[in-house]
Amino acid sequence: MTNIGIDIMGGDSAPKVTLEGSAKALPELDKDTRLYLIGPQKVIQEFLESEGLNGDSRLVVVSAEEAIGMDEHPVKALQQKKNSSLAVGFGLLAQKKIDGLASAGNSGAVMVGALNALKPIEGVMRPCVVSAFPQKNDSHNILVDVGINVDAKPEMLQQFARLGEVYSRLVYGVEQPRVGLLNTGEEEGKGSLLYQKAYEILKNTKDITFVGNLEAREFYEDRADVTVCDGFTGNVFLKQAEAFYNLLQYRNIKDPFLEKFNYERYGGTPILGVNGNVVLGHGVSGTTAIANMILATEKVAKAKLSENITKVFKK
Amino acid sequence: MTNIGIDIMGGDSAPKVTLEGSAKALPELDKDTRLYLIGPQKVIQEFLESEGLNGDSRLVVVSAEEAIGMDEHPVKALQQKKNSSLAVGFGLLAQKKIDGLASAGNSGAVMVGALNALKPIEGVMRPCVVSAFPQKNDSHNILVDVGINVDAKPEMLQQFARLGEVYSRLVYGVEQPRVGLLNTGEEEGKGSLLYQKAYEILKNTKDITFVGNLEAREFYEDRADVTVCDGFTGNVFLKQAEAFYNLLQYRNIKDPFLEKFNYERYGGTPILGVNGNVVLGHGVSGTTAIANMILATEKVAKAKLSENITKVFKK
Repeated sequence: MTNIGIDIMGGDSAPKVTLEGSAKALPELDKDTRLYLIGPQKVIQEFLESEGLNGDSRLVVVSAEEAIGMDEHPVKALQQKKNSSLAVGFGLLAQKKIDGLASAGNSGAVMVGALNALKPIEGVMRPCVVSAFPQKNDSHNILVDVGINVDAKPEMLQQFARLGEVYSRLVYGVEQPRVGLLNTGEEEGKGSLLYQKAYEILKNTKDITFVGNLEAREFYEDRADVTVCDGFTGNVFLKQAEAFYNLLQYRNIKDPFLEKFNYERYGGTPILGVNGNVVLGHGVSGTTAIANMILATEKVAKAKLSENITKVFKK
Repeated sequence: MTNIGIDIMGGDSAPKVTLEGSAKALPELDKDTRLYLIGPQKVIQEFLESEGLNGDSRLVVVSAEEAIGMDEHPVKALQQKKNSSLAVGFGLLAQKKIDGLASAGNSGAVMVGALNALKPIEGVMRPCVVSAFPQKNDSHNILVDVGINVDAKPEMLQQFARLGEVYSRLVYGVEQPRVGLLNTGEEEGKGSLLYQKAYEILKNTKDITFVGNLEAREFYEDRADVTVCDGFTGNVFLKQAEAFYNLLQYRNIKDPFLEKFNYERYGGTPILGVNGNVVLGHGVSGTTAIANMILATEKVAKAKLSENITKVFKK
């Protein structure tokens, strides 16, 4: 049995799209997965009744009558709103009543919750977030970090490599993930001081398969399964990919391969390096993105990602 | 009269494509522009004869019998090969015998030449390179720096803003360029320490129109005419755009708007902040890119870009 929680009040269009996304995800979840809908009981019950889902044994309603707004101060909001859907969700995850938590809410608050309620895994300096990018040959290149650690240190990039490597193995099924370093040139010695030092460290990291520097130009060419960068560069990279997808929409271009850049398909990014499986969704998520965020959370929880990262960092 | 020099031995496919590109650019240059072909005299003469261009009064052949390879050490190569096409070109530019120099050669050597033979403009801490990106409404957003200053300081970002602002005004004809700061979020206080500090400085810079942070997601939405970032992030950004254009080719997508992302159209980037107008081309440049690099050099030289930057930094 796998238990997944969804923060019904998280997201710009919550609770409407979070409820619709939950209903959409339900038929695609494994038979032995239960979905915990965490939010205002009356609203959830009314939705379930309207959809004819009342009494579905795979749905569990958890009452949480407060909500954290998208612009609230993350630390204060979580401290003051103990009965918010997000705080209740983290409580359930910390007590291991659920195996994974999905939220498209205030990303700062989700991060603070992950760090304070779950704590970083022992040995992990700084948790990070990832994004999987489609490759020409249908595989994925996972970029780490895409936003949390905007002032990274070389040793942190080494940890991102190890965290991304576990994620690639367990969730994407890559046996021996190739790890690249995002950089301005292929040769050793390229890039800023941070990247020069990170290269040195990665080259000497025995438990990963380091394939050297990777230029953004070659990023989609299946040269690596995991690509490491600081959170500032990674965030800009991720958002530029979104911008390109938006330009394709603007030009009304339909292409099955390029459609993989639709961020709604990915739903969310796991927070790697905390004691618990948390998937953070995009605030602007629509119904499809919410459904995919829930499915991604199930995948991460079934892979016992957090638990396996703990083992790797114990070595 | 405007005199433009082209480094005939610069580029992966030189001298073939540099000569072909020169011939292609010739009919599009202004009538009062002369093109200086700097390289091996015999090879150039043979090409001109074969094309029926011998005796064209707008072409000047300058003998330079050595060449700097794409992988040579920039400083050593320029010091040792005084008769290389690149060194001779910088000599002509420093002596003001030509008004602009174009090279798709060893980019390190072009930079070293610009810094050593021309010197930075007084008051400019670090010269930089730019790239113009198409916007939805047909205008351009100019990203500065796209590669030189991978370890930038906040004060350097302020200078990039002023350099980019002059470029936008004089070469793109924007009357009052809006300057944005590339960042991970729109709100003040976002981003790394470098970007937080740069925001503070830009906010208080009186001679530019600062419009705040710009997320990569909004980069193509005509929110700014100039966008400032460090050279590491800018280089990754530029190369990711190239990667996307390559994906469009891979999927055989033809679209007049997206075709603007074809880097061959731009030909090269001016080096802003040195005493002379230098345009640096892509090493892999084909004939079209070389032709466009020459046309870009003419535009920059006619705008007296370097001379006008000198005035701005004198204030």
